[in-house]
Amino acid sequence: METLLISILDLAGTAAFAASGALLALRRRLDFFGVLVLSFLTACGGGIVRDLLIGRTPPAALEDYTYVIVAVSTGFITFAFYRIISRVHRLLEIFDAIGLGLFTVTGVTIGLEHEIPPFAAALLGVITAVGGGAIRDVLAARVPTVLRDEIYASASLAGAVIMLAFELTPIINREIAGLIGGSFVTLLRLAAYRWSWRLPVRSID
Amino acid sequence: METLLISILDLAGTAAFAASGALLALRRRLDFFGVLVLSFLTACGGGIVRDLLIGRTPPAALEDYTYVIVAVSTGFITFAFYRIISRVHRLLEIFDAIGLGLFTVTGVTIGLEHEIPPFAAALLGVITAVGGGAIRDVLAARVPTVLRDEIYASASLAGAVIMLAFELTPIINREIAGLIGGSFVTLLRLAAYRWSWRLPVRSID
Amino acid sequence: METLLISILDLAGTAAFAASGALLALRRRLDFFGVLVLSFLTACGGGIVRDLLIGRTPPAALEDYTYVIVAVSTGFITFAFYRIISRVHRLLEIFDAIGLGLFTVTGVTIGLEHEIPPFAAALLGVITAVGGGAIRDVLAARVPTVLRDEIYASASLAGAVIMLAFELTPIINREIAGLIGGSFVTLLRLAAYRWSWRLPVRSID
Repeated sequence: METLLISILDLAGTAAFAASGALLALRRRLDFFGVLVLSFLTACGGGIVRDLLIGRTPPAALEDYTYVIVAVSTGFITFAFYRIISRVHRLLEIFDAIGLGLFTVTGVTIGLEHEIPPFAAALLGVITAVGGGAIRDVLAARVPTVLRDEIYASASLAGAVIMLAFELTPIINREIAGLIGGSFVTLLRLAAYRWSWRLPVRSID
Repeated sequence: METLLISILDLAGTAAFAASGALLALRRRLDFFGVLVLSFLTACGGGIVRDLLIGRTPPAALEDYTYVIVAVSTGFITFAFYRIISRVHRLLEIFDAIGLGLFTVTGVTIGLEHEIPPFAAALLGVITAVGGGAIRDVLAARVPTVLRDEIYASASLAGAVIMLAFELTPIINREIAGLIGGSFVTLLRLAAYRWSWRLPVRSID
Repeated sequence: METLLISILDLAGTAAFAASGALLALRRRLDFFGVLVLSFLTACGGGIVRDLLIGRTPPAALEDYTYVIVAVSTGFITFAFYRIISRVHRLLEIFDAIGLGLFTVTGVTIGLEHEIPPFAAALLGVITAVGGGAIRDVLAARVPTVLRDEIYASASLAGAVIMLAFELTPIINREIAGLIGGSFVTLLRLAAYRWSWRLPVRSID
């Protein structure tokens, strides 16, 4: 039951990531195929980079149909129903925040299973969560918003650190730690989006 | 005899890809070394990414001198004889289309040999064929034309799908399937270039 | 004693690379976290790409705390004391040139240990030395300066080739060859910076 819920949330997060890729592709006037490519890479790019870093080849996104189908379908729907999709941007932000939390937990968990150092597992979590968005922005020739927007990559890192802190306390198992860490990411991201919380930017002149 | 022909076409495609990298590097006012780097990465970048995705390290482009020599020589020639090279752009488009077809077939074939799912083999074909062009454009700080121009990445995908369809029919072997799929890519790309066929672009306001 | 000196220079080079990432991040108005990310990727990105290319996963930068700590601390200090750091840019150029030389030697050495062809070992040296700077510039949405500035990537390649030439002469061992090659890179880079030496740029119209 819980795993079913997580699967549904996971796919909702994937779809939200894909939609953000599709919307940016449309704004950059990419053609139909370009929209699908950016949908796929935004949704799956973070996981692909993570898998390359730990030597898991081919990456999961090339072995499991589900993510490709969800990502590409979302790209198709966004292309076909642009007006509707661009109007539900609040709903997309919620799904996106859920994806951010879940992808962080997935990355950290896979890192811990590969017995890499905790700091590296935290980095893997962040890469899984924000790597797709960074690839999306690089392909759209703009500075990644995940490094500039309201608290985003930093929310992912905070959740990863929380998860790792629990890992050191033997009372709480990894599933619970992931639940707490991931929920923290999602809630912090939503709060930051709602109230425009930002990290300090240095005024340099 | 056939393999000799394919080798020659393969090197012609590599040279055409390298020339497109060199020409863009010159337009971006990169120096001599930058021109050679962009020539190499445009010609070999797609294959390198493909090899990383299937865990073939070091990538073929770092084990076989031929491609580096062809790519870097082409960059050198383009630097030295810019005017001539930029005038034969039609010839370059033909070689480029041949490269697109051959690289697609190479990627799909390697994918099938690694026994990854068909959809992933198709993606590998597209990545091999258009990855170098995408890297070229990212380094030149522009949105990849392979996702915007006349049917390009989509031609590669169409050929990959045709090749995979034949794979399911036991009558036709992989060589023939590759010949048909690759030729389809090249001809579709040339037709799209000649008559400016484009995929639909969504008007978003 | 020598190894201690090399370790200190190595960390000084890492810090200089990280500072160049942090300074660019500040100019692009990235937030605090974005500054740290760009510091890390500029300092460690070249080594990470090198490790992926030779199949060393997870990359060294995810297994050894030292580099992350040095890179992120440098990013923090640059954020906090921007004015001071931006005034010592000459000192940073010297450290950067030292980093360029050392990273080139590291890359070539690792390549030779993995028994890849000499030309590929030279490429690994250049990738290790300039890959981080290229990633920094791609994330900042600009054409990599390592391909445009005063002799930079080409200094790295020249040193790598010198090192490989010595590799063929059995009299000189790899440590000495690395010392000569690395020093050459650093001195050539400093001279190019001081006197604004540039490689030819092709005037294309």
